[in-house]
Amino acid sequence: MTQILSERRPGAYYDSIILMRLQSALAKLPAVMDAGVAMATAANLALLESNDLLPEGATVAPEDLLVVVKADSAAAAEAALSEVDNLLDRRRAGPGSDYRPRSLENAAKMLPEASWVLVSVPGRYAAEVAGRALDQGKHVFLYSDNVVLADEVALKRRARALGLLVMGPDCGTAIVGGVCLGFANRVRRGTIGLVGASGTGLQAVTCKIHRLGAGISHALGTGGRDLGAEVAAVTTLQALELLGRDTETEIVVLISKPPSTTVASQVLAAAQRVGKPVVVEFIGYPPPGRRLGNICFASGLDEAAELAVELAHKGRSDEHCLLDTSSKATPNEGRFVRGLFAGGTLAYEALLGFRTFLQPLYSNISVSNVAADSVHPLTDPTRSVAHTVLDLGEDEYTVGRLHPMMDQDLRLRRLRQEASDPEVGMIVLDVVLGYGAHADPASELAPVIREISAQHSIDVMVLVIGTEDDPQDLEAQVERLQQAGAIVFRESFEMVAAVHRRYHSPAPEEPSVPVSLDGLAAPIAAINIGLETFHEGLLAQEAPVVHVDWRPPAGGNEKLAAILRRLRPQTE
Amino acid sequence: MTQILSERRPGAYYDSIILMRLQSALAKLPAVMDAGVAMATAANLALLESNDLLPEGATVAPEDLLVVVKADSAAAAEAALSEVDNLLDRRRAGPGSDYRPRSLENAAKMLPEASWVLVSVPGRYAAEVAGRALDQGKHVFLYSDNVVLADEVALKRRARALGLLVMGPDCGTAIVGGVCLGFANRVRRGTIGLVGASGTGLQAVTCKIHRLGAGISHALGTGGRDLGAEVAAVTTLQALELLGRDTETEIVVLISKPPSTTVASQVLAAAQRVGKPVVVEFIGYPPPGRRLGNICFASGLDEAAELAVELAHKGRSDEHCLLDTSSKATPNEGRFVRGLFAGGTLAYEALLGFRTFLQPLYSNISVSNVAADSVHPLTDPTRSVAHTVLDLGEDEYTVGRLHPMMDQDLRLRRLRQEASDPEVGMIVLDVVLGYGAHADPASELAPVIREISAQHSIDVMVLVIGTEDDPQDLEAQVERLQQAGAIVFRESFEMVAAVHRRYHSPAPEEPSVPVSLDGLAAPIAAINIGLETFHEGLLAQEAPVVHVDWRPPAGGNEKLAAILRRLRPQTE
Repeated sequence: MTQILSERRPGAYYDSIILMRLQSALAKLPAVMDAGVAMATAANLALLESNDLLPEGATVAPEDLLVVVKADSAAAAEAALSEVDNLLDRRRAGPGSDYRPRSLENAAKMLPEASWVLVSVPGRYAAEVAGRALDQGKHVFLYSDNVVLADEVALKRRARALGLLVMGPDCGTAIVGGVCLGFANRVRRGTIGLVGASGTGLQAVTCKIHRLGAGISHALGTGGRDLGAEVAAVTTLQALELLGRDTETEIVVLISKPPSTTVASQVLAAAQRVGKPVVVEFIGYPPPGRRLGNICFASGLDEAAELAVELAHKGRSDEHCLLDTSSKATPNEGRFVRGLFAGGTLAYEALLGFRTFLQPLYSNISVSNVAADSVHPLTDPTRSVAHTVLDLGEDEYTVGRLHPMMDQDLRLRRLRQEASDPEVGMIVLDVVLGYGAHADPASELAPVIREISAQHSIDVMVLVIGTEDDPQDLEAQVERLQQAGAIVFRESFEMVAAVHRRYHSPAPEEPSVPVSLDGLAAPIAAINIGLETFHEGLLAQEAPVVHVDWRPPAGGNEKLAAILRRLRPQTE
Repeated sequence: MTQILSERRPGAYYDSIILMRLQSALAKLPAVMDAGVAMATAANLALLESNDLLPEGATVAPEDLLVVVKADSAAAAEAALSEVDNLLDRRRAGPGSDYRPRSLENAAKMLPEASWVLVSVPGRYAAEVAGRALDQGKHVFLYSDNVVLADEVALKRRARALGLLVMGPDCGTAIVGGVCLGFANRVRRGTIGLVGASGTGLQAVTCKIHRLGAGISHALGTGGRDLGAEVAAVTTLQALELLGRDTETEIVVLISKPPSTTVASQVLAAAQRVGKPVVVEFIGYPPPGRRLGNICFASGLDEAAELAVELAHKGRSDEHCLLDTSSKATPNEGRFVRGLFAGGTLAYEALLGFRTFLQPLYSNISVSNVAADSVHPLTDPTRSVAHTVLDLGEDEYTVGRLHPMMDQDLRLRRLRQEASDPEVGMIVLDVVLGYGAHADPASELAPVIREISAQHSIDVMVLVIGTEDDPQDLEAQVERLQQAGAIVFRESFEMVAAVHRRYHSPAPEEPSVPVSLDGLAAPIAAINIGLETFHEGLLAQEAPVVHVDWRPPAGGNEKLAAILRRLRPQTE
């Protein structure tokens, strides 16, 4: 008769690989139908239950190890459980395991050229181990998850001050100098460098680049939380700056699940400073357009790879994603942009573009969730604040009044109002021609634009929508606006790009100490603490590596560890 | 000395054009410095104030007309105000104004071939006028804004039942059979048909298509609220279906500001049924990828035009945005998709794709705002609901356990669990190869997949990420999975597209009565009620048009109008 028996082992540390092997070995014992081995967290208990492996009436704590055996008979189940100690002791002799240091510090002495430390110990120990790696002046590949957010922030800030990288926590994938750290694929070396807050994202894109015949210089992971508001992209910003300096890297690809919107704009600004074409795939982030200066926005991982390869083939002089080095200067810095639009959708598109580089940004348009934290609602529609984009066709301006496409009175007044504001450096307008619209908008706008250009050092950018067959005479309208001093565009994207050229380089946010390019230079040597799998991966690549035979303090006994900590001399 | 004088005219109707002309005429009178003419709403008073035109201590109600004059002297201001009646009476003789009917019904008798009615009377009268146009069997171009949402819903549902279109309210732009209604540009005729919840969006895209040398069949506006949850895209769905049948239209472009997410998936399903390539630009909606069956997602208005022209040049046999007519059948209809992913980003990308055609959709991934209303959180991670995508690398599955890229135990169990659910029709997996990952994942997965394929009629789709140089032997892995019955993909997009082919055609939601193609056939004749500008536009295009000399009931006196309404016999 089917019997489920279990054994509880109170709070102690077991390597996950050991547990996996234990479960697998138990399930193969005679007359055993199934086995479950897990730390007794609520989630794991639910999983055991859904597999019909939860022993009835067991009292367990989350830090307990629970070993469950389902067998044909009670005798078989008991026999299996009696094997647990034997199975736990049976440690496979790993390759290259002649001598294994017990500490990071000893490992560092054995392999002084190691510039990277791979950390994959359980989350609650990981920050401490990573901190010690930084003490040794090593970059950290931090695979461990469940690291406290505050620890991540502290580690990364400290690393930045030391000119070191902390990739992670929860960083699965990196390729440095041709060597795969963690989970990564064997791909051709080449000129495309990647930065990714997404492990499988990096794997998918590097594999596709390889399939398309191109290659990878480096792929730097950051951990999934790096682009959140709290961490504020410390590692991403370091990695972008580093790939910008790296001579092997000609094209940069940046991948992340949707970043915090405020962080997105900082990261995009940093991408603009890279000085190389950058393909951005923020999965689920509505792109502000196809490209913005040196940035191309992809739709999906596959397309990110395709764009990168296309750019790599075209070389750096490529026009499709032109590197704009001409205007590092920011003539309008500190002065604001004011957009006065008649067309609601034109205003909306400008807003989506501007939000990536103009902050703070206000508008009377109620944006969707998508842009809610990068566009602030304007409380008083008669007064602009900071950078402001107005849709003058919204209800608050048009009750009992013609639409601004027909009646320009309101816009002409607003133009003068904005121009008299000393904080304003640029005014952006649209002029929409066609049937139904004002018969000669330039005749009214040109004099005001001339006045503004003459009296204030304000740029006036005008987006003209229309065809040469429209009743207003497109060419004459454009000419008149240009003669008055306006810079005229025919496409929304061009206008956003032109505004961007004036504003794209906010005060540099360079890391305190730039990361040395030596960290990327082959041959890469590393120290591995945690999962043996990663050690094996490095050995298979013939990378110099030392594996630390790590054990948690006091063998994972939390109480004893706390006492030991109190006995240790204060170091901080 | 500067004097500001004002005059209040209690609640009465004035045409906005009349008011614009009055203000302009007043401002041109001798010694007048500025003038303001507006209905005394709070917004308009704020605007007058910001222009230094607000008379002190004036007591006004929102339905009052306020006329303000700022002049050199009190005498000049008084003289200007005394001209108001004269100026209001001076009506310009419009072109073609020999005889103007006072009612829509009379206009319809004068021009029985008119199949369109343009309505641009003030919002509070507009629904009633539009309703009368439907009574006459006419399509409605409803420019008026400030129409109550409930009225819009009722009008559109009634129109749908009658096989008629209501474009609007707040619809600025349409081109029907080559004739521009409202604000629209004179563009080449051609094979590209547009549907747009955005007037200036339609103008920008049609102008760009024209510039690129291609042309427009029709451009149908819907009004900005059509893709909101309340209206649920009634007009957009009708318009897509209509352009699908229209023989002139070969390529369809669909434009909107971000739609309600649930509506987005309905609209995308309808776009798939169009049976022609459809370019979608949902401004600010994160695209699920570059294309999905016959749908191409654009990044921005300019690119929407570029893609449409590219497709138009290639003709309908185009591969880039292939029309998939092969699988109208939905073999899996009513049975669910379950995604069991090891890679978080691969799960996320699948989710972004699936959400456009699989509903209801659940996941243990906490999606951002972007997708929040199309992806529901899974409350119990051990039990899937409806369509479910799981990231098995999330914390709830990995505490004290190896990541599923190394340890497949959990996934193998879950595979069997999903397969035993009779509601499941398809299971989707990823297999990520490379260093660090499981040494031979197919050896464990293949037997389970074979079991599932043999015992249940369930499709198993597997996305394999890796290169031929990876230690697992990519080719052997793929072969083994295929031999077990899995359908293997190398790119996320291909997998989403394949799932989509099985599920893309939900129960048809055709309008009760299809709109007749006659409404699009030239020559277009129309009746105009409201803005004379639109009448002039139609005359300039030599389209047969009758302008109705409309006056609000009781001359705009709300009290009197209410009495008249009560006296009228009940019609509903």
